[in-house]
Amino acid sequence: MVNQSALDNIFARRSIRRYTDQPVSEEDIKKLLEAAMAAPAASDSWHFIVVRARGTLDALAERHPNAKMLAKAPLCIVPCADPPTFETWWIQDCSAATENLLLAATALGLGAVWVGTYPRDEWVRAVRKVLGIPESIVPLCLIPVGYPAEHKEPRTRYDAARVHREKW
Amino acid sequence: MVNQSALDNIFARRSIRRYTDQPVSEEDIKKLLEAAMAAPAASDSWHFIVVRARGTLDALAERHPNAKMLAKAPLCIVPCADPPTFETWWIQDCSAATENLLLAATALGLGAVWVGTYPRDEWVRAVRKVLGIPESIVPLCLIPVGYPAEHKEPRTRYDAARVHREKW
Repeated sequence: MVNQSALDNIFARRSIRRYTDQPVSEEDIKKLLEAAMAAPAASDSWHFIVVRARGTLDALAERHPNAKMLAKAPLCIVPCADPPTFETWWIQDCSAATENLLLAATALGLGAVWVGTYPRDEWVRAVRKVLGIPESIVPLCLIPVGYPAEHKEPRTRYDAARVHREKW
Repeated sequence: MVNQSALDNIFARRSIRRYTDQPVSEEDIKKLLEAAMAAPAASDSWHFIVVRARGTLDALAERHPNAKMLAKAPLCIVPCADPPTFETWWIQDCSAATENLLLAATALGLGAVWVGTYPRDEWVRAVRKVLGIPESIVPLCLIPVGYPAEHKEPRTRYDAARVHREKW
């Protein structure tokens, strides 16, 4: 049996950068984190920082050039990795967790956006400084979350030119 | 309004490595690719190779030590990147696309699994050789897909010890 609502949710997930003043409940934060940690993982390296303090959200908005929307967001979740040194599976693991979190946000009626941070050194350093993250830990991205104050239609960017058959 | 079916689907996605003989329809392959290309992306670098030929699936199973299940799978989708040289956002983009594809497979009643390939050099080279992928293109992983011949319960690996509040 096809779970059409789950398919619809994948296309409904869009990058939402404007939020209302309504706070996100602790119950929903827990659901977002449960969804993130339901992702497949090869490295067992992920951690998540939950930021709700106004001053910290503002500091991130000031120091990360693509995170201005945090000045008006009630919540930011920051996936980080405590990576093994020998291979970079952690990027894939934290990315899958991030996508799960974004999809769960959509399912909960929330809006969110993936603000890339790693591998841009100056952005990684800025986020580390604001959040007290040690040098050995890598913040992958910032995920501002809130109730949407903008609407975007569901979509795919499916492009047949990117599909190869049997061989490259 | 909460889309509970979409949340349930996130927890229902498990790594499925045993499949029935039933083939996957072209219609479902298209849905999987549409879901993959609905992921957020910073690099516009993704490509997908759709492999159904028995000989090619067997060759991948022989050459990638974690892809033995392809000997009994009717389909493999291989997310690849044509990466920009200056930064590695492509890993994140292709990982988000892969997670979307896995979730769409679950929603369609299919089973699938993420078989990590990049950054393990010998696995990347093996997949390139079988699929005729040029040196400049990177296969991120293999995704065997089929109708499940094993059942796994929904779950999260939520761990409160991985959740940090306000600061690291």
